[in-house]
Amino acid sequence: MKINTINGSKDFIESLRGKTATFILSISTTKTCEIKGITQAGLPGLISLTPTLDAEFLAIGEVRSLENIAETPKGVPTPALITRAVHLEHPFKRIEFLNLGVDNIPKIDYFQIHNFDIKKSEAIDTNAKINALELFQKGVEFGKNYICKDDYIILGESVPSGTTTAEATAQAMGYDVAEKFSSSFKNNPTNIKNQTIKKALNNINNEDELFQILGKVSDNMLIFNAGFLLGNSYTRTKILLAGGTQMAALLLVVNSIVKYMDGQFDSSNIALCTTSWVANDEDSNIISILNMNDFKVNAYASNFNFSNSSHPALKLYEDGEAKEGVGAGGALIYASLNGIEQNQITNRVESLLG
Amino acid sequence: MKINTINGSKDFIESLRGKTATFILSISTTKTCEIKGITQAGLPGLISLTPTLDAEFLAIGEVRSLENIAETPKGVPTPALITRAVHLEHPFKRIEFLNLGVDNIPKIDYFQIHNFDIKKSEAIDTNAKINALELFQKGVEFGKNYICKDDYIILGESVPSGTTTAEATAQAMGYDVAEKFSSSFKNNPTNIKNQTIKKALNNINNEDELFQILGKVSDNMLIFNAGFLLGNSYTRTKILLAGGTQMAALLLVVNSIVKYMDGQFDSSNIALCTTSWVANDEDSNIISILNMNDFKVNAYASNFNFSNSSHPALKLYEDGEAKEGVGAGGALIYASLNGIEQNQITNRVESLLG
Repeated sequence: MKINTINGSKDFIESLRGKTATFILSISTTKTCEIKGITQAGLPGLISLTPTLDAEFLAIGEVRSLENIAETPKGVPTPALITRAVHLEHPFKRIEFLNLGVDNIPKIDYFQIHNFDIKKSEAIDTNAKINALELFQKGVEFGKNYICKDDYIILGESVPSGTTTAEATAQAMGYDVAEKFSSSFKNNPTNIKNQTIKKALNNINNEDELFQILGKVSDNMLIFNAGFLLGNSYTRTKILLAGGTQMAALLLVVNSIVKYMDGQFDSSNIALCTTSWVANDEDSNIISILNMNDFKVNAYASNFNFSNSSHPALKLYEDGEAKEGVGAGGALIYASLNGIEQNQITNRVESLLG
Repeated sequence: MKINTINGSKDFIESLRGKTATFILSISTTKTCEIKGITQAGLPGLISLTPTLDAEFLAIGEVRSLENIAETPKGVPTPALITRAVHLEHPFKRIEFLNLGVDNIPKIDYFQIHNFDIKKSEAIDTNAKINALELFQKGVEFGKNYICKDDYIILGESVPSGTTTAEATAQAMGYDVAEKFSSSFKNNPTNIKNQTIKKALNNINNEDELFQILGKVSDNMLIFNAGFLLGNSYTRTKILLAGGTQMAALLLVVNSIVKYMDGQFDSSNIALCTTSWVANDEDSNIISILNMNDFKVNAYASNFNFSNSSHPALKLYEDGEAKEGVGAGGALIYASLNGIEQNQITNRVESLLG
């Protein structure tokens, strides 16, 4: 299992071989996910429960708020399966959660869930109504004060319809990202997504400043974690942003906030880590999003795939049905950094599927 | 994969099972390596670049200062392949470098390179011209102040023509080591080596004291690390000397300095770890070198070999073409201490060779 350098150089990731990691999953819900047909990340009618179920499954290997793990309509299982498989094969030193606004707090004991009194946000087509500055400041405080007990952090996310809010956020901030964003759909539902994004952008007024814009079109995960990354500049903890185009959008938010505040951002302790499905996706272009930043950022993609599995659900990953999420790409790179091979992960995922 | 106790008892090495290690590679060049035919550790005309290339390859898996990794004329690859393979299979917790005088600093970011303002030394046949006392004191200071973040240190070296300078050093200090030293050549080029050593010894005057002798016939790696080991007595960090007869000579240097200074050396935290190729070498005798010390020292040899590989380049190790270097023996013992088997290392090395 290899780590491909897709932006920057390999030195950063090579320096993390054998080191211990804290996996932090950001869980958040936006009512955007309730727009019909906008996402397949979850069970119909219960999509806003997906982050809760992902958190439970990642931590303890079962979902307590539902009988079956989150599946998309065609039966593509959540990428949480991959992250959990990595955790079983070569465990993260610890798993923690950022509750960035979910309906149901994961029903798990003994795992730290950081709470910030953050509410689920509204749908972006009608104005997400997020107090973005306050939320950002909560992130900064967290980043400044969080003491990582391990050598680095892997920061993942579970936010249904998160690619839609991420693309809307990037466009609203003025980045030319049309056609550059990924989706968990094979047949990228560009119509519904584009309509939603268009409606979201229409809510923005010319006099809106950055945080007002973010409050209307973005999501809690992006705004809080932008603060987290900036607050982290004080401790200089190494962070792997485990995700695809959403994590790339997070960096755009950081970039815009830094410019807005006339500040600077040292990106040398940050890298983006994603899956081969995102890196090779012909319908999106993560590298060109990364390169819209004023700072350089290292980015890596695992070459993991399910080619040595005959399980029908896993074939769908190869067909592009599910590409990333719940930190799967970062988890796979963590596995590589610790000598784990593709067949070990595949076997674990297959046994999780039963 | 077994660890054979070749001197002392197995208790020391058994106490390190499962513990974490910092791998420190000493990189150094002496112009001795430019004497024609004296070493095959590197590419003809570029041998002094070998330590730089070894460092790059070990840390990040590629060489930046050259297109191909250092190979000897017949195509025996550097033992860095073995150490890198171990790092891929079961990573060292961190890798650091001691720059003890190289032409080109390794082009790697995010890895600590300790610099001491040490220059490449001259060839020993014409006087190495090392300020040995100052260099030794730099080593002592480093040893006193270095804080190991892991449970123990594996100290390796990459010094082309290092077995020649090591043998000259041992002889100059008065140890009867003729025929006891190893070389990276199968047909040990004793003529060129012996001539060089003879010339080196001729430069010594009767009134020369120990540090003057070392300054004429030794190398930076031996002198600095003798200081390092003595300075380390203050912190009592456990150190595996990963190498063959060069590391045995390092202990002779320690022994002579301790006697010269009328001091004492507690060797209980030090052990020598080497390959089966050194331990079984009929042209050298590492155990008898070790037993010339006034202190006892534990020594171990990995039983790793390439018997289950059909790769022609690796067969040459079995034929005695390459025996040790870049901490290969210590790395293999570290692998054993962590449950890694021979076929896992062989597969990694083969995939590195492509």
